[in-house]
Amino acid sequence: MIILGIDPGTAIVGYAVLRTTAQGTPELLASGAIRPRTLEKEGRLVEIRKQVVSLIDIHRPDTFALEKIFFSKNIKTALSVAEARGVLLLTAKERSIKVSEYTPSEVKLAVTGYGKADKQQVKAMVKAILKLRDAPALDDVADAMAVAITAFHLKSF
Amino acid sequence: MIILGIDPGTAIVGYAVLRTTAQGTPELLASGAIRPRTLEKEGRLVEIRKQVVSLIDIHRPDTFALEKIFFSKNIKTALSVAEARGVLLLTAKERSIKVSEYTPSEVKLAVTGYGKADKQQVKAMVKAILKLRDAPALDDVADAMAVAITAFHLKSF
Repeated sequence: MIILGIDPGTAIVGYAVLRTTAQGTPELLASGAIRPRTLEKEGRLVEIRKQVVSLIDIHRPDTFALEKIFFSKNIKTALSVAEARGVLLLTAKERSIKVSEYTPSEVKLAVTGYGKADKQQVKAMVKAILKLRDAPALDDVADAMAVAITAFHLKSF
Repeated sequence: MIILGIDPGTAIVGYAVLRTTAQGTPELLASGAIRPRTLEKEGRLVEIRKQVVSLIDIHRPDTFALEKIFFSKNIKTALSVAEARGVLLLTAKERSIKVSEYTPSEVKLAVTGYGKADKQQVKAMVKAILKLRDAPALDDVADAMAVAITAFHLKSF
Protein backbone atom coordinates (compact mmCIF):
# COMPACT_ATOMS: atom_id res chain seq x y z
CA MET A 1 0.00 0.00 0.00
CA ILE A 2 1.42 3.38 -1.06
CA ILE A 3 0.05 6.61 0.47
CA LEU A 4 0.73 10.09 -0.91
CA GLY A 5 0.20 12.62 1.90
CA ILE A 6 -0.26 16.18 0.65
CA ASP A 7 -0.38 19.53 2.40
CA PRO A 8 -1.71 21.94 -0.22
CA GLY A 9 -0.80 25.58 0.09
CA THR A 10 -0.65 28.59 -2.17
CA ALA A 11 3.14 29.03 -2.19
CA ILE A 12 4.29 25.54 -1.13
CA VAL A 13 2.69 22.11 -1.42
CA GLY A 14 4.30 19.61 0.96
CA TYR A 15 4.21 15.93 0.10
CA ALA A 16 5.27 12.61 1.62
CA VAL A 17 5.10 9.12 0.14
CA LEU A 18 4.73 6.21 2.58
CA ARG A 19 4.58 2.51 1.95
CA THR A 20 3.65 -0.39 4.19
CA THR A 21 6.65 -2.66 4.78
CA ALA A 22 6.42 -6.48 5.00
CA GLN A 23 6.43 -5.95 8.79
CA GLY A 24 3.37 -3.72 8.55
CA THR A 25 5.19 -0.54 9.53
CA PRO A 26 5.16 2.72 7.55
CA GLU A 27 8.28 3.55 5.56
CA LEU A 28 8.99 6.96 4.04
CA LEU A 29 9.82 6.58 0.35
CA ALA A 30 10.01 10.25 -0.58
CA SER A 31 9.09 13.69 0.70
CA GLY A 32 9.54 17.25 -0.38
CA ALA A 33 7.95 20.51 -1.29
CA ILE A 34 6.51 21.68 -4.59
CA ARG A 35 7.33 25.38 -4.89
CA PRO A 36 5.71 26.87 -7.96
CA ARG A 37 8.13 29.41 -9.43
CA THR A 38 5.48 31.70 -10.80
CA LEU A 39 3.53 34.19 -8.71
CA GLU A 40 0.48 34.04 -10.95
CA LYS A 41 -2.33 31.87 -9.55
CA GLU A 42 -3.24 29.94 -12.70
CA GLY A 43 0.43 29.23 -13.44
CA ARG A 44 0.87 27.83 -9.94
CA LEU A 45 -2.06 25.48 -10.39
CA VAL A 46 -0.58 24.19 -13.65
CA GLU A 47 2.80 23.61 -11.97
CA ILE A 48 1.24 21.83 -8.98
CA ARG A 49 -0.72 19.65 -11.39
CA LYS A 50 2.41 18.71 -13.37
CA GLN A 51 4.48 17.87 -10.33
CA VAL A 52 1.70 15.83 -8.71
CA VAL A 53 1.21 13.89 -11.96
CA SER A 54 4.94 13.17 -11.95
CA LEU A 55 4.78 11.97 -8.29
CA ILE A 56 1.90 9.67 -9.28
CA ASP A 57 3.89 8.31 -12.22
CA ILE A 58 6.93 7.62 -10.04
CA HIS A 59 5.26 6.24 -6.91
CA ARG A 60 1.90 4.88 -8.10
CA PRO A 61 0.06 5.75 -4.86
CA ASP A 62 -3.11 3.83 -3.94
CA THR A 63 -4.47 6.75 -1.98
CA PHE A 64 -4.07 10.51 -1.46
CA ALA A 65 -4.26 11.69 2.16
CA LEU A 66 -5.24 15.33 2.69
CA GLU A 67 -6.23 17.51 5.61
CA LYS A 68 -9.72 18.94 5.53
CA ILE A 69 -9.54 22.70 5.24
CA PHE A 70 -9.21 24.48 8.51
CA PHE A 71 -11.67 27.39 8.54
CA SER A 72 -10.45 29.72 11.25
CA LYS A 73 -7.49 31.01 9.22
CA ASN A 74 -7.58 33.88 6.79
CA ILE A 75 -10.53 33.28 4.47
CA LYS A 76 -8.68 34.56 1.38
CA THR A 77 -5.90 32.04 2.00
CA ALA A 78 -8.46 29.28 2.60
CA LEU A 79 -10.08 29.99 -0.77
CA SER A 80 -6.71 29.89 -2.59
CA VAL A 81 -5.85 26.63 -0.86
CA ALA A 82 -9.24 25.26 -1.92
CA GLU A 83 -8.41 26.08 -5.56
CA ALA A 84 -5.22 24.01 -5.24
CA ARG A 85 -7.21 21.24 -3.51
CA GLY A 86 -9.63 21.21 -6.45
CA VAL A 87 -6.73 20.50 -8.80
CA LEU A 88 -5.44 17.71 -6.51
CA LEU A 89 -8.90 16.10 -6.19
CA LEU A 90 -9.38 16.25 -9.97
CA THR A 91 -5.98 14.65 -10.59
CA ALA A 92 -6.61 11.87 -8.06
CA LYS A 93 -10.01 11.04 -9.53
CA GLU A 94 -8.74 11.05 -13.12
CA ARG A 95 -6.10 8.50 -12.07
CA SER A 96 -8.62 6.46 -10.01
CA ILE A 97 -6.75 7.19 -6.79
CA LYS A 98 -8.87 7.23 -3.65
CA VAL A 99 -8.79 10.40 -1.54
CA SER A 100 -8.94 10.25 2.28
CA GLU A 101 -9.52 13.46 4.16
CA TYR A 102 -8.93 14.07 7.87
CA THR A 103 -9.54 17.00 10.16
CA PRO A 104 -6.50 18.61 11.84
CA SER A 105 -7.50 17.05 15.17
CA GLU A 106 -7.85 13.58 13.63
CA VAL A 107 -4.29 13.98 12.33
CA LYS A 108 -2.93 15.16 15.67
CA LEU A 109 -4.72 12.36 17.49
CA ALA A 110 -3.49 9.68 15.09
CA VAL A 111 0.11 10.89 15.17
CA THR A 112 0.57 11.93 18.81
CA GLY A 113 -2.39 10.40 20.66
CA TYR A 114 -3.56 13.91 21.56
CA GLY A 115 -6.00 15.92 19.41
CA LYS A 116 -4.62 19.29 20.51
CA ALA A 117 -0.89 18.55 20.11
CA ASP A 118 1.26 21.47 18.93
CA LYS A 119 3.47 21.58 15.81
CA GLN A 120 6.61 20.56 17.71
CA GLN A 121 4.93 17.50 19.25
CA VAL A 122 3.65 16.46 15.81
CA LYS A 123 7.12 16.88 14.27
CA ALA A 124 8.77 14.86 17.07
CA MET A 125 6.29 11.99 16.65
CA VAL A 126 6.59 12.07 12.84
CA LYS A 127 10.37 11.75 13.26
CA ALA A 128 9.98 8.81 15.68
CA ILE A 129 7.29 6.96 13.68
CA LEU A 130 9.18 7.25 10.39
CA LYS A 131 12.58 6.67 12.07
CA LEU A 132 14.04 9.84 10.57
CA ARG A 133 17.44 11.16 11.63
CA ASP A 134 16.02 14.66 11.87
CA ALA A 135 12.50 16.03 12.14
CA PRO A 136 11.43 17.69 8.86
CA ALA A 137 12.40 21.35 8.84
CA LEU A 138 9.47 22.57 6.77
CA ASP A 139 6.01 22.64 8.36
CA ASP A 140 4.44 21.82 5.00
CA VAL A 141 6.49 18.62 4.70
CA ALA A 142 5.89 17.63 8.34
CA ASP A 143 2.15 18.13 7.81
CA ALA A 144 2.20 15.99 4.67
CA MET A 145 4.00 13.23 6.60
CA ALA A 146 1.52 13.52 9.48
CA VAL A 147 -1.55 13.19 7.27
CA ALA A 148 0.04 10.22 5.45
CA ILE A 149 0.71 8.54 8.83
CA THR A 150 -2.92 9.21 9.77
CA ALA A 151 -4.13 7.43 6.63
CA PHE A 152 -1.71 4.60 7.36
CA HIS A 153 -3.00 4.16 10.94
CA LEU A 154 -6.68 4.58 10.19
CA LYS A 155 -6.52 2.62 6.92
CA SER A 156 -9.73 4.35 5.98
CA PHE A 157 -9.16 3.96 2.26
CA MET B 1 -13.21 37.84 -29.73
CA ILE B 2 -14.93 34.94 -27.96
CA ILE B 3 -15.70 35.13 -24.22
CA LEU B 4 -16.68 32.13 -22.10
CA GLY B 5 -18.49 33.41 -19.01
CA ILE B 6 -18.69 30.88 -16.21
CA ASP B 7 -20.58 30.78 -12.93
CA PRO B 8 -18.98 27.93 -10.99
CA GLY B 9 -21.06 26.17 -8.36
CA THR B 10 -21.00 22.85 -6.59
CA ALA B 11 -24.15 21.40 -8.16
CA ILE B 12 -24.48 23.52 -11.31
CA VAL B 13 -21.94 25.42 -13.39
CA GLY B 14 -23.61 28.02 -15.60
CA TYR B 15 -21.89 29.08 -18.81
CA ALA B 16 -22.41 31.55 -21.66
CA VAL B 17 -20.39 32.03 -24.83
CA LEU B 18 -20.36 35.52 -26.36
CA ARG B 19 -18.71 36.79 -29.47
CA THR B 20 -18.16 40.29 -30.79
CA THR B 21 -20.08 40.87 -34.00
CA ALA B 22 -18.76 42.92 -36.94
CA GLN B 23 -20.88 45.78 -35.52
CA GLY B 24 -19.03 45.54 -32.20
CA THR B 25 -22.04 44.24 -30.28
CA PRO B 26 -22.09 41.10 -28.11
CA GLU B 27 -23.83 38.05 -29.55
CA LEU B 28 -24.75 34.97 -27.53
CA LEU B 29 -23.42 31.85 -29.26
CA ALA B 30 -24.31 29.30 -26.58
CA SER B 31 -25.35 29.03 -22.97
CA GLY B 32 -26.34 26.33 -20.57
CA ALA B 33 -25.67 24.56 -17.32
CA ILE B 34 -23.23 21.77 -16.53
CA ARG B 35 -24.95 19.54 -13.99
CA PRO B 36 -22.58 16.81 -12.78
CA ARG B 37 -24.60 13.64 -12.31
CA THR B 38 -22.52 12.30 -9.44
CA LEU B 39 -22.85 13.49 -5.85
CA GLU B 40 -19.24 12.75 -5.05
CA LYS B 41 -16.99 15.80 -5.02
CA GLU B 42 -14.04 14.43 -6.97
CA GLY B 43 -16.35 12.95 -9.61
CA ARG B 44 -18.04 16.33 -10.04
CA LEU B 45 -14.72 18.04 -10.62
CA VAL B 46 -13.82 15.48 -13.30
CA GLU B 47 -17.18 16.04 -15.01
CA ILE B 48 -16.86 19.83 -14.88
CA ARG B 49 -13.36 19.53 -16.34
CA LYS B 50 -14.55 17.32 -19.22
CA GLN B 51 -17.47 19.53 -20.14
CA VAL B 52 -15.41 22.72 -19.98
CA VAL B 53 -12.73 21.14 -22.18
CA SER B 54 -15.45 20.26 -24.65
CA LEU B 55 -16.81 23.87 -24.57
CA ILE B 56 -13.26 25.09 -25.28
CA ASP B 57 -12.89 22.67 -28.18
CA ILE B 58 -16.19 23.79 -29.69
CA HIS B 59 -16.00 27.54 -29.15
CA ARG B 60 -12.25 28.30 -28.86
CA PRO B 61 -12.73 31.16 -26.37
CA ASP B 62 -10.04 33.84 -26.08
CA THR B 63 -10.90 34.54 -22.48
CA PHE B 64 -12.72 33.06 -19.47
CA ALA B 65 -14.79 35.53 -17.44
CA LEU B 66 -15.46 34.57 -13.82
CA GLU B 67 -16.86 36.27 -10.75
CA LYS B 68 -14.51 36.67 -7.82
CA ILE B 69 -15.74 34.59 -4.92
CA PHE B 70 -18.22 36.33 -2.74
CA PHE B 71 -17.23 35.80 0.89
CA SER B 72 -20.32 36.52 2.89
CA LYS B 73 -22.11 33.29 1.90
CA ASN B 74 -21.75 29.99 3.68
CA ILE B 75 -18.01 29.32 4.06
CA LYS B 76 -18.35 25.59 3.33
CA THR B 77 -20.06 26.37 0.03
CA ALA B 78 -17.42 29.00 -0.78
CA LEU B 79 -14.65 26.42 -0.29
CA SER B 80 -16.39 23.88 -2.56
CA VAL B 81 -16.90 26.55 -5.21
CA ALA B 82 -13.19 27.44 -4.89
CA GLU B 83 -12.29 23.80 -5.62
CA ALA B 84 -14.32 23.98 -8.84
CA ARG B 85 -12.70 27.34 -9.65
CA GLY B 86 -9.26 25.74 -9.23
CA VAL B 87 -10.16 23.21 -11.92
CA LEU B 88 -11.43 25.98 -14.23
CA LEU B 89 -8.32 28.14 -13.73
CA LEU B 90 -6.07 25.12 -14.37
CA THR B 91 -7.93 24.25 -17.56
CA ALA B 92 -7.80 27.83 -18.85
CA LYS B 93 -4.06 28.14 -18.20
CA GLU B 94 -3.28 24.77 -19.79
CA ARG B 95 -5.06 25.97 -22.93
CA SER B 96 -3.43 29.44 -22.77
CA ILE B 97 -6.80 31.13 -22.27
CA LYS B 98 -6.69 34.36 -20.32
CA VAL B 99 -8.88 34.60 -17.19
CA SER B 100 -10.64 37.82 -16.22
CA GLU B 101 -12.20 38.04 -12.77
CA TYR B 102 -14.74 40.59 -11.60
CA THR B 103 -16.36 41.30 -8.26
CA PRO B 104 -20.15 40.93 -8.02
CA SER B 105 -20.54 44.72 -7.90
CA GLU B 106 -18.34 45.21 -10.97
CA VAL B 107 -20.64 42.80 -12.81
CA LYS B 108 -23.81 44.54 -11.63
CA LEU B 109 -22.38 47.93 -12.52
CA ALA B 110 -21.27 46.82 -16.00
CA VAL B 111 -24.59 45.15 -16.80
CA THR B 112 -27.14 47.49 -15.20
CA GLY B 113 -25.19 50.67 -14.45
CA TYR B 114 -25.87 50.15 -10.75
CA GLY B 115 -23.50 48.21 -8.44
CA LYS B 116 -26.26 47.07 -6.10
CA ALA B 117 -28.78 45.88 -8.68
CA ASP B 118 -30.87 42.86 -7.70
CA LYS B 119 -31.10 39.54 -9.58
CA GLN B 120 -34.22 40.56 -11.49
CA GLN B 121 -32.66 43.80 -12.73
CA VAL B 122 -29.57 41.91 -13.86
CA LYS B 123 -31.70 39.32 -15.68
CA ALA B 124 -33.76 42.00 -17.42
CA MET B 125 -30.62 43.82 -18.63
CA VAL B 126 -28.97 40.56 -19.75
CA LYS B 127 -32.08 39.82 -21.81
CA ALA B 128 -32.03 43.32 -23.37
CA ILE B 129 -28.27 43.43 -24.07
CA LEU B 130 -28.21 39.98 -25.67
CA LYS B 131 -31.56 40.52 -27.44
CA LEU B 132 -33.02 37.32 -25.97
CA ARG B 133 -36.69 36.47 -26.33
CA ASP B 134 -36.84 35.46 -22.66
CA ALA B 135 -34.63 36.19 -19.71
CA PRO B 136 -32.66 33.08 -18.68
CA ALA B 137 -34.62 31.01 -16.17
CA LEU B 138 -31.63 29.70 -14.25
CA ASP B 139 -29.71 32.12 -12.01
CA ASP B 140 -26.49 30.26 -12.80
CA VAL B 141 -26.92 30.85 -16.53
CA ALA B 142 -27.96 34.49 -16.05
CA ASP B 143 -24.87 35.04 -13.88
CA ALA B 144 -22.61 33.46 -16.51
CA MET B 145 -24.13 35.76 -19.17
CA ALA B 146 -23.72 38.78 -16.89
CA VAL B 147 -20.03 38.13 -16.22
CA ALA B 148 -19.39 37.51 -19.94
CA ILE B 149 -21.10 40.85 -20.74
CA THR B 150 -18.88 42.50 -18.10
CA ALA B 151 -15.74 41.16 -19.79
CA PHE B 152 -17.12 42.30 -23.14
CA HIS B 153 -17.74 45.85 -21.86
CA LEU B 154 -14.56 46.25 -19.86
CA LYS B 155 -12.38 44.46 -22.43
CA SER B 156 -9.90 43.92 -19.63
CA PHE B 157 -8.33 40.85 -21.21
